[in-house]
Amino acid sequence: MAKTKARTLSGFMELLPADQIKFERMLASLRSSYETYGFTPLDTPVIESAEVLLAKGGGETEKQIYRFQKGDSDLALRFDLTVPLAKYVAAHYAELSFPFRRYQIGKVYRGERAQRGRFREFYQADIDVIGDGKLDILNEAEIPSVIYRSFTGLGLKKFKIRVNNRKLLNGFYELNGMSEKAGEIMRTVDKLDKIGPQKVKQLLIDEVKMLPDKSENVLDFMAIQGTNEEVLARLEEYRQLGNETFNQGLDELIAVTKYLRDFGVPEDHFAIDLTIARGLDYYTGTVYETVMTEHPEIGSVCSGGRYDSLAEYYTDRQLPGVGISIGLTRLFYVLGEQGLLSDELITAPCDALVLPMTEDLSAAVAAATVLREGGVRTQVYFEQKKFKAKMSYADRLGVPFAVLLGEDEVSEGVVSVKDMRSGEQVKLSAAEAAEKIRAAVAWQNRAAIIKE
Amino acid sequence: MAKTKARTLSGFMELLPADQIKFERMLASLRSSYETYGFTPLDTPVIESAEVLLAKGGGETEKQIYRFQKGDSDLALRFDLTVPLAKYVAAHYAELSFPFRRYQIGKVYRGERAQRGRFREFYQADIDVIGDGKLDILNEAEIPSVIYRSFTGLGLKKFKIRVNNRKLLNGFYELNGMSEKAGEIMRTVDKLDKIGPQKVKQLLIDEVKMLPDKSENVLDFMAIQGTNEEVLARLEEYRQLGNETFNQGLDELIAVTKYLRDFGVPEDHFAIDLTIARGLDYYTGTVYETVMTEHPEIGSVCSGGRYDSLAEYYTDRQLPGVGISIGLTRLFYVLGEQGLLSDELITAPCDALVLPMTEDLSAAVAAATVLREGGVRTQVYFEQKKFKAKMSYADRLGVPFAVLLGEDEVSEGVVSVKDMRSGEQVKLSAAEAAEKIRAAVAWQNRAAIIKE
Repeated sequence: MAKTKARTLSGFMELLPADQIKFERMLASLRSSYETYGFTPLDTPVIESAEVLLAKGGGETEKQIYRFQKGDSDLALRFDLTVPLAKYVAAHYAELSFPFRRYQIGKVYRGERAQRGRFREFYQADIDVIGDGKLDILNEAEIPSVIYRSFTGLGLKKFKIRVNNRKLLNGFYELNGMSEKAGEIMRTVDKLDKIGPQKVKQLLIDEVKMLPDKSENVLDFMAIQGTNEEVLARLEEYRQLGNETFNQGLDELIAVTKYLRDFGVPEDHFAIDLTIARGLDYYTGTVYETVMTEHPEIGSVCSGGRYDSLAEYYTDRQLPGVGISIGLTRLFYVLGEQGLLSDELITAPCDALVLPMTEDLSAAVAAATVLREGGVRTQVYFEQKKFKAKMSYADRLGVPFAVLLGEDEVSEGVVSVKDMRSGEQVKLSAAEAAEKIRAAVAWQNRAAIIKE
Repeated sequence: MAKTKARTLSGFMELLPADQIKFERMLASLRSSYETYGFTPLDTPVIESAEVLLAKGGGETEKQIYRFQKGDSDLALRFDLTVPLAKYVAAHYAELSFPFRRYQIGKVYRGERAQRGRFREFYQADIDVIGDGKLDILNEAEIPSVIYRSFTGLGLKKFKIRVNNRKLLNGFYELNGMSEKAGEIMRTVDKLDKIGPQKVKQLLIDEVKMLPDKSENVLDFMAIQGTNEEVLARLEEYRQLGNETFNQGLDELIAVTKYLRDFGVPEDHFAIDLTIARGLDYYTGTVYETVMTEHPEIGSVCSGGRYDSLAEYYTDRQLPGVGISIGLTRLFYVLGEQGLLSDELITAPCDALVLPMTEDLSAAVAAATVLREGGVRTQVYFEQKKFKAKMSYADRLGVPFAVLLGEDEVSEGVVSVKDMRSGEQVKLSAAEAAEKIRAAVAWQNRAAIIKE
C-alpha cells in the first residue's frame, strides 16, 4: 500500500510525552491561580461565524485568519479569546451576573508566516473582569496580584509587572498639544529600550516632526523612574497644569498602587513605567506588561489593560472591563529554549511500573489495583519480555519506581519496590508500597515547572 | 454603529458558567482516572494537512469533514482523535517507548446536519495502548478496569461494560459458511434490542437471504447469556468444531475475563455480550461497549476495541493497539437532559465573596490575600453598591460564604463569615476563616458530578 507521509503542519506545536506533561503542569498551575481569584472557566467554540468574529473588521488580523465555507456558512477560526468573550457576554447578557469574571485557556489560530518560535496554533490564557455599565478601578488594582501569583505559581521569580495608564499618557500629550501625533510618538518611544534616548529624540524631531523642546518634554516624562512613591511624586508636579484626563489617569494610578502590599505584591516586582502603551485604540485606562528581568529579549509575557467597550460591535450596552493574556505556547517554547523548564519533575506516564515475573498475573494485577486505589499512577508491564528489556523500558520512561512480583513476593504476599534512581529495593505490602511511592512522588513533584 | 448579532453556531455547545464548571469537573475526573492507569496526556493540532487526515480516505466521514485552503495548503479539522494518534505514532516512532499509552481529551469536528443532541464540535476522551509489532492480550483485559474506574469516578453506578470478541464472531460465521454475509448479519443482529429476536430472524431470512436453520443458529448463538462462567461454558461447546479463529477468540475472551476481580471490576458491571460488534473493518479482537443500565436509550457511552494496524496508511510497521473513546459533549448533554448532573457541587466562581463595608479597603484586600493563600477561591466585591445588591450578587452566583468587613471587624482585626445557606454568621481571624471555608467547601464538593 502506498504510504502517506505522517507529518505535522509547520507552525503547529506537537510535543513529545515528557514535554507534554510539563506543558500540562503549566496549564494546571495557571488554572489554579486564576480560580483562586474567583475567575470562572469558560469554553467557547473554536469555529465562529465569520461575520461575528470579524464584526470589528479589518486590519492585520483579517489577513491571518483561517476563514472558509461549509455549505452556505461563512466560518472562521477564533484568532484570540477576547472577541469570543465579547460575543459570549453580549449573547448571554441576561443570564450572567456582573461583574463577570472569567478565565479561558484555549487554542487560537493565526495563519502567520511560519518562523522559528512563531505559531499558527497557540494557547492563550486570558482573564477578564467585565462590568455592566461601570467597573470600579479596584478591579484594575487587583490584576497585578493575579499576575504575581500566576507567575510565582509557575516558579518564576525574576520578573517585573510594569504598569502605566492610558489617560495619563493621553493627558500628557494633550498638555503638550501633541494629541494627534500621540500614536506616532508612542511607537517611537517604544524603541527607547533598543536605541536609547538620544536616537529616539532625533527620530521624534526628524520623522515625527516635533520641535526639539517638545521632544525633550516627551523624553523627560518618559525618563521618570524610581519607587512608586517617587514616580507618583514627580507626576504630581503635572497635576497643577489642570488637564482633566491627566489628573484622572494619575488618580487611577494612585488607586492601582495603593493596595499593592495588601494584595501580596512585593514592590520590587512592580514598577510604574511611563514608556509602555499597549496599542492604540482599545485600552483606555491601566495597561500592563510583564517582563522576565533576566530575559528582556523575550518581551512581555503577560499583557493587557482596561477597556471601556468590550462588545460594542454586538450591543449598545456599555460593558467596560479589564483583562490580561498570556501567550502560553510561545512562553513554553521560549522557556524550553532558555533551559528554564524544570527537569526535577516526574515526566513518566506512571509513578510505578509493576513487573510481573510469574505466569499467573493475579498477584501483580491485584497489587496494581491497590496502588491505584492508593493514589499511585500505575502501569502493569504485560508484554512477555526479558527482565532487562522491562527495566530498560522503565528507564526510558523515567518511571520513579519499579514494583517487582516474583515467586517469592507472591508467596510472601508482598511486593518488592525498587527506587529507580537510588537502586534501593525493599519488600512491602502493596498498601505500604502505595504509601511510600505516593509520598516520594509528591516530594519529587513539589518543584515548580519553571526553574531560574 | 450598526450591530452584528452575537450568536453561536448551531451544533456548537457553549455553556453558561455553572454548567461549564460541571463540565470541567467531568474533564478533571476523567484525566485523573486515565492518569491513574499510566496513560500520558497528548495534545495534537486541531488542524492537519487534509492529505494526512484523509489518508484512509472515503466514507461518510469525508463528507462531514471541515476542509479548506489556506494559501497553497489543503487543510482539514480533525474528526476524531485516532487518526491524529496514528500520525503522531508514525511521525515520532523513534522517540516513543512501546507499549505507548496515551490519553487525549480534545475537541473534534464533524459537519453533520445539526439536530438536537448532535454536535458539530464535541469533546472526545480517548485512551489507547499501542504496541510495537505485538501487544499482549492482557492490555485488552485491563480496559474494562479503566472504564469501570472512569465511570465510578464520575459518580455513575448503574452501568454495564459489555464485551465481545471479533475473532469469536468471525470464527462463528466461518463455521456457518456465512463469512461474506457477516457484515449484513451483524447490522441486522444489532437491532435485537429494538425489535426482538422474532423480527430479526425474519429480516435475516427475507433481507439477508439466509436459510431458516442458519438464521436460527445465529439467534441461538446471540442468545447465549449468563454469568461469565456460564457464557464461557456454552462457548466451549463450539470449540470442538475446530475453527481456529473461533478458538483463538474464545481463548482471548477467557483471558479478558480471568483477572476481572483482581482488576477491581465487580462481575455485575461486566457482561460478555455476543451481540455487540462495533463496526466492521477496524477492530480485530476484543470490542467494548458501555451502557447505562437504566438508560439504554442513550446507547453506548464508551466504546472501543482491539485493532491490528493503527498506522498502516503512514508506515509499514505493525502497530497493534487497543483503545476506547467517550463522547463527552454528548454524554454531558444527555446527563443534563436526564437530570443526572449533581446540583450539590459548588458552581460559583468563588468559595468566598469578600464584602468590604468601609471606605479604606486595606483590611478587606489583606483578608482576601490570606483566604487565597489558605486555598480558598476568593473574590472581593469592589463595586460601590448597596449591601443588598452585594448579597443578591452572592446569591445569584451561589457563593457558599460571604466574608464581611465593616468598621467593627476592621477594628477588632477579624472578619465575619456568613454561611449563605444556613445564614449562620461568625467572627473569625482571616486565617481561621480560610480553614473553616476550605473544610466546608471540600465537604460540599465531595459529591460526584453524576448523581443517580
